[in-house]
Amino acid sequence: MNLRKECAPFFKKAQDEICRALEDLDNKSKFVRDHWQRTDVTGEPGGGGVTGILTQGDCFEQAGVNFSEVHGFLPPEMSKKLVGSEEKAAFYATGISVVIHPFSPMLPTSHANFRYLEVGDKHWFGGGMDLTPYYLFEEDAQHFHRRIRSTCDLHHDSFYPKFKKWCDQYFYLAHRNETRGVGGIFFDYVSKDDDIPLPSAWSFVQDLPRCFLEAYLPICNRRKTEFWGEKEKAFQLIRRGRYVEFNLLYDRGTQFGLSTGGRTESILMSLPPVVHWKYSFAPEPNSREEKLIQALRNPREWCEV
Amino acid sequence: MNLRKECAPFFKKAQDEICRALEDLDNKSKFVRDHWQRTDVTGEPGGGGVTGILTQGDCFEQAGVNFSEVHGFLPPEMSKKLVGSEEKAAFYATGISVVIHPFSPMLPTSHANFRYLEVGDKHWFGGGMDLTPYYLFEEDAQHFHRRIRSTCDLHHDSFYPKFKKWCDQYFYLAHRNETRGVGGIFFDYVSKDDDIPLPSAWSFVQDLPRCFLEAYLPICNRRKTEFWGEKEKAFQLIRRGRYVEFNLLYDRGTQFGLSTGGRTESILMSLPPVVHWKYSFAPEPNSREEKLIQALRNPREWCEV
Repeated sequence: MNLRKECAPFFKKAQDEICRALEDLDNKSKFVRDHWQRTDVTGEPGGGGVTGILTQGDCFEQAGVNFSEVHGFLPPEMSKKLVGSEEKAAFYATGISVVIHPFSPMLPTSHANFRYLEVGDKHWFGGGMDLTPYYLFEEDAQHFHRRIRSTCDLHHDSFYPKFKKWCDQYFYLAHRNETRGVGGIFFDYVSKDDDIPLPSAWSFVQDLPRCFLEAYLPICNRRKTEFWGEKEKAFQLIRRGRYVEFNLLYDRGTQFGLSTGGRTESILMSLPPVVHWKYSFAPEPNSREEKLIQALRNPREWCEV
Repeated sequence: MNLRKECAPFFKKAQDEICRALEDLDNKSKFVRDHWQRTDVTGEPGGGGVTGILTQGDCFEQAGVNFSEVHGFLPPEMSKKLVGSEEKAAFYATGISVVIHPFSPMLPTSHANFRYLEVGDKHWFGGGMDLTPYYLFEEDAQHFHRRIRSTCDLHHDSFYPKFKKWCDQYFYLAHRNETRGVGGIFFDYVSKDDDIPLPSAWSFVQDLPRCFLEAYLPICNRRKTEFWGEKEKAFQLIRRGRYVEFNLLYDRGTQFGLSTGGRTESILMSLPPVVHWKYSFAPEPNSREEKLIQALRNPREWCEV
């Protein structure tokens, strides 16, 4: 089984399907695609990718869907971390990442990422998807988690509980004592550090792009006519600052990408287009804004409600 | 010489002087002061500080001037880095940090930080000041550097050239191939890793708050009536994104503060109040915007012009 030959075309096709589905929902703006090539840290050609960006839509203020297939050599500190050797290790990575910032504060931001990696003689899958609401509609969080759980359960009973917990732990801003959102799933090193066979992991990952669309898009459809005003927009812009803080302070994917000479614009398309920081902002007691923050401080089992 | 007893009151007084000078120039908004206390990672009281914030001024969209005097124990990875021992080391730190975000894109952002540190049985001073213009007025960069150089030269011939170079190297965004601004000075471990006696370093640091005001405020006065429009404002908001990227991805002070349980709001007051990210933004060829970016790619000797 040559996974490179299967994964890269699959992810490329998934990118197109996700772009099309988002365009259909937005019903105004279209994705513009940038084809780019990467030079490896060694100076040799290092693969490339296609970054799709939709901006100023009717529904989405900015949506980015990035496909990449890259290869080269890892910096020593990165190989040590990933395969325990300080020798310069060859790597190959292909995958897609999706970050969607709706205009309305009633629609949640969402992120998904699916990737296949090879470093030295190790292979594994990583990825996940998560939801970052500005206003908490419990039935939306339930729908998102239940839809993901049903896909996970088709593949392995352990997947949802394990990856849901991992997601809550990974998307955590220690300096704010908050999770980034209401979670979803996050997984890494699948088939490398566990006993999941590589073909099983690959079969699981192939179900995830569709799962993501079915988990996220119904929420957008349901909330796009929801009323909001200046107060709600202001809150969204401040909360987007937390999103930036997570991505730049903590996110491994961002750090991996920037430190291996990845394409800056394709990596930082995850950052929201407009962001506010306000010193010592605190929501009013018992407000909807406070209800969100409470939920981010106390991760819940959304499937068990 | 008990430097703790001298430094903390000096920095507290410098905070008040800087706040007063900025209020005088702004001529509209005043600083609001938050007194805060810190709990050390050990759970014991760990000192505190006063954060002064001025917002929505006539000149300054946001200015923060933070004083702190904190103590406790460093996490092992931090002691290893600072004093080469993995044992939990006691630390003491006092200093001020200043970050000023003007409203007009014709006025540069500026940052200054002066601090005294003790870790285990080592003592040292660190700090600096730097200028981040959105539109480059060469005479402003020259004034800023010359004013700093004249203070440095009073203390040691090596200070300005050494600390100017260190500043260009420190405030560098590798993923953008740009410096954060047109520099200034940056220094760390003075009297720890070099042969500068501690009293000499302290005498130098005492001249820096006034030096900062004399380096920065005349530029604000000179540029506050400069014309600007929507295009210039849009550019400023995008450039502010680079400021956020530096502070969250690279800045050691931010990482030191957040990882030692510092007060999040006082640390992140450095982030600009309104920020835009725009995928693949590039200035027009031969524009004033491009002239700035060229200057950030090629640090200059501003005193030798």
